[in-house]
Amino acid sequence: MIYYRIALIGLGLIAGSMGLRIRQDGLANEVVGTARSAATCDIALQRGLCDRITGTAAEAVQDADLVILCVPVGAMATVAEEIGPHLKPGATVTDVGSVKRAVIDAVAPHLPSGVHFIPSHPLAGTEHSGPEAGFPELFEKRWFLLTPVSTDQAAIDRLTTLWQALGSKVEAMDPDHHDLVLAVTSHAPHLIAYTMVGVADDLQRVTDSEVIQYSAAGFRDFTRIAASDPVMWRDVFLNNKKATLEILGRFTEELFALQRAIRTEDGDMLHDYFTRTRAIRRGIVEAGQDTDAPDFGRGAKR
Amino acid sequence: MIYYRIALIGLGLIAGSMGLRIRQDGLANEVVGTARSAATCDIALQRGLCDRITGTAAEAVQDADLVILCVPVGAMATVAEEIGPHLKPGATVTDVGSVKRAVIDAVAPHLPSGVHFIPSHPLAGTEHSGPEAGFPELFEKRWFLLTPVSTDQAAIDRLTTLWQALGSKVEAMDPDHHDLVLAVTSHAPHLIAYTMVGVADDLQRVTDSEVIQYSAAGFRDFTRIAASDPVMWRDVFLNNKKATLEILGRFTEELFALQRAIRTEDGDMLHDYFTRTRAIRRGIVEAGQDTDAPDFGRGAKR
Repeated sequence: MIYYRIALIGLGLIAGSMGLRIRQDGLANEVVGTARSAATCDIALQRGLCDRITGTAAEAVQDADLVILCVPVGAMATVAEEIGPHLKPGATVTDVGSVKRAVIDAVAPHLPSGVHFIPSHPLAGTEHSGPEAGFPELFEKRWFLLTPVSTDQAAIDRLTTLWQALGSKVEAMDPDHHDLVLAVTSHAPHLIAYTMVGVADDLQRVTDSEVIQYSAAGFRDFTRIAASDPVMWRDVFLNNKKATLEILGRFTEELFALQRAIRTEDGDMLHDYFTRTRAIRRGIVEAGQDTDAPDFGRGAKR
Repeated sequence: MIYYRIALIGLGLIAGSMGLRIRQDGLANEVVGTARSAATCDIALQRGLCDRITGTAAEAVQDADLVILCVPVGAMATVAEEIGPHLKPGATVTDVGSVKRAVIDAVAPHLPSGVHFIPSHPLAGTEHSGPEAGFPELFEKRWFLLTPVSTDQAAIDRLTTLWQALGSKVEAMDPDHHDLVLAVTSHAPHLIAYTMVGVADDLQRVTDSEVIQYSAAGFRDFTRIAASDPVMWRDVFLNNKKATLEILGRFTEELFALQRAIRTEDGDMLHDYFTRTRAIRRGIVEAGQDTDAPDFGRGAKR
């Protein structure tokens, strides 16, 4: 047991996966959960994502020694304002938002002194969302990035122990650097995937059924990313505007250079570019961050 | 047995997968193969991709009633010129190139009359390439698009029967329309993935090791696509220039609209866009063109 009582605010994919793992491995004495939608709360209880549901976030945090904010980034300020007066002195508050600077700005002002605020970002997820989507192994071999506001080392160590118990690796990072790194590895790729899928859907001369039938040639990988939760992603872009726009600017510049190489038939430039990008893939597979099985192993019977 | 002798010109992922399946299921009496590199030929024989290797393409097509050109699109003209005089009267020639108009222009002039030219494009592949990468189930549930030059219905039907025997579905299409459809579902997505991976690799303020460690947040799906064979893809872009540039133009226009929505904080526009793209994903899963398992089922123990 690492914490006595853990409160999950919001009960989607991430919170659900945490709740299942925490309860399965006895990492807390009690997991209390709350969510705005009654349907979500019902499913959460049925699936055993938590021991007990409360009607409000304020009730959920009563006597909790760890509070995990699992709501979309745009909802963090409201939730923090609600729970602030009800937090137990000495409690730790963390979150799982995909941007960190904006979450710190939204949440920190509402927390009383004596509460340890240690923002987190688990680099884990799937294209599925909601309380049905969670599973206890979601965080295995994935990273948790911490951007601690609190300087209490004991509180940081204790939270680190919990994330490690979920199967994760933990690294601390400056929040602005976090937001830039994630703009590259996640936010820009998501926007680009959404854009490409939108273009395909829009194109008058190619029907949607053609796009769907013939997607296996590469496009379907984009559609997986572009099937992610719309509210979460809207909030990510609105709250990591600067870094995302910077990376998209670099992307456009580079795309124009490659377009020009196609137009001028500069085969050497294209070949060199496509060779260089292979090395990054090898690094990711070697670092255990992806499988080397062809097509991610989907349906392969090799 | 559908053909007596099949000649595979080029012995990479696609040819290797065909050879394994054709031999496994007895779809031809003999599979003859050839490739430029001696190392490729050795591996092909070891893995049983074909029954017999010849030193040249001209020898490989001797008495073959089906010749399958499995070389990069840019090498098609040279190979066609070499084999033209050696083709058996009444033989069928097909190819597996990812673009069709350029292949027709490159190959057709070199084929004698009495030979049936039926270009094909199997929408199947993985990020792995070479003679080690093939496996007999590669074409299961995937499409073969035909853009027949020959009007000989018996020859078209016979080739269709072979592709169906590999587990595929077959559809005929106009070559220019094919090139546009593939620009959307494959060529533009590949260029975009290559570009995004290149940007990540280039960015001074984020290290390669950060990109690699934290890739699970979406980026790693792009790196899979961007690990595809550089020669093949160089040739695709050089040979489907017009359609690819058209789609990239549309993509850039759309990306600018989304960038503006981020800049002006138009959350509704972003939310609507991200909701619309989910429907395409559902269509692809329902059409059996991808798995609904989270993260493509990679490593999931749910």
